[in-house]
Amino acid sequence: MFIEVEQKTLAKALHMISGAAAARSPIPILAGLKLEADPGGLTLAAGHPGMMLQYRIPSGDGQAIVGQRGSIVVPARYLTELIRRLPEGFVTVSCTEDRVVVIRSGGAAYRLSGMCADAFPALARLEHSAVVHMPNFALKRAIKQVAFAVSTSDARPSLTGVSCRSEGGQVRLTATDGVRLASRTIAASKRRQDAFPAVVIPGKPLSEFSKMMHDEQGTTAVTLGKDSIRFQTGDLLMQCSLLAGGFPSADQLTPAAFAAELTLETQALLRTLVRVSLLSGDSKTVRLTVLSESAIELSSRTAAVGDAAETVGIEALSGEKLAVSFNGSHMTDIIEAVDSACVTLKLAGKWSPIVIRPADCPSSFYILTPIRTRG
Amino acid sequence: MFIEVEQKTLAKALHMISGAAAARSPIPILAGLKLEADPGGLTLAAGHPGMMLQYRIPSGDGQAIVGQRGSIVVPARYLTELIRRLPEGFVTVSCTEDRVVVIRSGGAAYRLSGMCADAFPALARLEHSAVVHMPNFALKRAIKQVAFAVSTSDARPSLTGVSCRSEGGQVRLTATDGVRLASRTIAASKRRQDAFPAVVIPGKPLSEFSKMMHDEQGTTAVTLGKDSIRFQTGDLLMQCSLLAGGFPSADQLTPAAFAAELTLETQALLRTLVRVSLLSGDSKTVRLTVLSESAIELSSRTAAVGDAAETVGIEALSGEKLAVSFNGSHMTDIIEAVDSACVTLKLAGKWSPIVIRPADCPSSFYILTPIRTRG
Repeated sequence: MFIEVEQKTLAKALHMISGAAAARSPIPILAGLKLEADPGGLTLAAGHPGMMLQYRIPSGDGQAIVGQRGSIVVPARYLTELIRRLPEGFVTVSCTEDRVVVIRSGGAAYRLSGMCADAFPALARLEHSAVVHMPNFALKRAIKQVAFAVSTSDARPSLTGVSCRSEGGQVRLTATDGVRLASRTIAASKRRQDAFPAVVIPGKPLSEFSKMMHDEQGTTAVTLGKDSIRFQTGDLLMQCSLLAGGFPSADQLTPAAFAAELTLETQALLRTLVRVSLLSGDSKTVRLTVLSESAIELSSRTAAVGDAAETVGIEALSGEKLAVSFNGSHMTDIIEAVDSACVTLKLAGKWSPIVIRPADCPSSFYILTPIRTRG
Repeated sequence: MFIEVEQKTLAKALHMISGAAAARSPIPILAGLKLEADPGGLTLAAGHPGMMLQYRIPSGDGQAIVGQRGSIVVPARYLTELIRRLPEGFVTVSCTEDRVVVIRSGGAAYRLSGMCADAFPALARLEHSAVVHMPNFALKRAIKQVAFAVSTSDARPSLTGVSCRSEGGQVRLTATDGVRLASRTIAASKRRQDAFPAVVIPGKPLSEFSKMMHDEQGTTAVTLGKDSIRFQTGDLLMQCSLLAGGFPSADQLTPAAFAAELTLETQALLRTLVRVSLLSGDSKTVRLTVLSESAIELSSRTAAVGDAAETVGIEALSGEKLAVSFNGSHMTDIIEAVDSACVTLKLAGKWSPIVIRPADCPSSFYILTPIRTRG
């Protein structure tokens, strides 16, 4: 293997994908990063059999010149830290017969012990696949607005994922940890008339991938195989195994009827919620009380420290004057995700889930189970 | 107690000094922050008997209005987090008879349990004191350039401090952990003809204080008492106990004669040192070899991972072609502190300390003990 590549280009590629390499692994090759040079360019890959990230630097546009094809696995951390700190200009990467990777730039020569690329997990072929195309801007936003609600516990593995299913010309993403639920649709263009059944995508790689979608004008092709899913946009590719197990439906959590509906300014609610949550203690309990047609009160209390009470103006109210308690930290996450000037809260009583919707956008909704209090 | 104070002003004051309050303490009052209102303004204090930070918001310029004098201790973390998040405008802070502190702003009312201010450590009076005045800009820079070299081990407590002594019209600051030493003088104007003997100031509070010196045009008054020292600039005051115990002199570490002296571009040396250190392993050993009249090589090796070698151009060389090994991380700290376009390294042999000086500034110097290697 012999390649010449722009330091900036290589540093950017490594910055993107090296996080997928294990920091420490009983299987040393999984802490590695695979470099594969062919006449068309350089492909970098990192990950494990359940999740693989791949980035390609094409040789066409002068960023990389492949002198000799070949492949090798290099310790990800050392390579990334080194390339990031090299001066600008072309870097040469070559590989000796005994798998020593030599990196040169100006007066610098670095030699890293490589590992055989054959032992590195390969990207599985996707059989019986269906493809859906989604605009990056909408996909990135939707993942951010939904994926925060995944469960962090391994008790029910499917809840650590984001459910994805087709609904007409749209794709609906849903995440829940059993206490809160976030759901949003995105317009998607199917280029092939394949079926796209409901699947559950691991939440963490999905969030990581969404942060790497730098080209917001582009499109992501989502390819669904039998037990894996692939996201591909520009030179970046992420493929991961789907999660097995059932996924709760939002309908099960949504109350049949509501007793009150109130609309508030999102930023005013968010700022007050964050402040009142400061004194919500270990249980994070924040109480919302509808005071009048024009104001609610948020309150909290931490034993031995103190208590908080703030009023927030209401834009519109219909129905009864209720009070309900909830996890202030969960509600903050939801209000932060709402992404709309006003937000509507639908209450069905102090023991029934609260439904939260952006006031001007029907494509997303959130559900939060209340905390049962004595008061 | 009743005061009205601008949210921005109070938030800035709390941000500065609340770090001095203990995060968790077996003595609850040390996790508190003392508020003391008198007709002249509001004084905030945090710390412990060995180190106290104090900030005063004067009532004169409209930032604070004291309605009723009084003092109380409030949990530092809660107060700081709350005030930071309140909207701009005036905040009122009052105190009930049963020591509940009430904070109001717009529609918000927060109540925090206070503690009796009499139990809070008082600022000790400085007896037999001497005063020296130093320009903030020079003092801030000098502390940054020296304090990194303090010891982090409690084995010899005096080495966790910065030695400070008068030398003619100057003050010399020195720090060392036994392996490396950093020293620098600052011009100081003594307004009183007091003696200012050598003392050792705890390194951590000194560094923290230097970061709070926002007014670089101002002056700091340093008042030395029998066993405490006070730094005061503008509205900010820091007082801490001096460290007892001997402090090594730079003369003991400095070789009597040098075999070689080389001058290099500081930034080129620094960047190369950081890269080569990536492969210096757990021992952090980096080797410097004078290759010729015009170049040195820095090299390192990590077992089972790889090795590094880079050349750096020399601006000027006199003496022998030597090789010496040192802790790359310590040398990086020193070269970062040098703050000059070129740096001079004076070598006396592979077992003798290296002396490092900014090429154009006689006021500072650094000493680094080499690592003894077999090669």
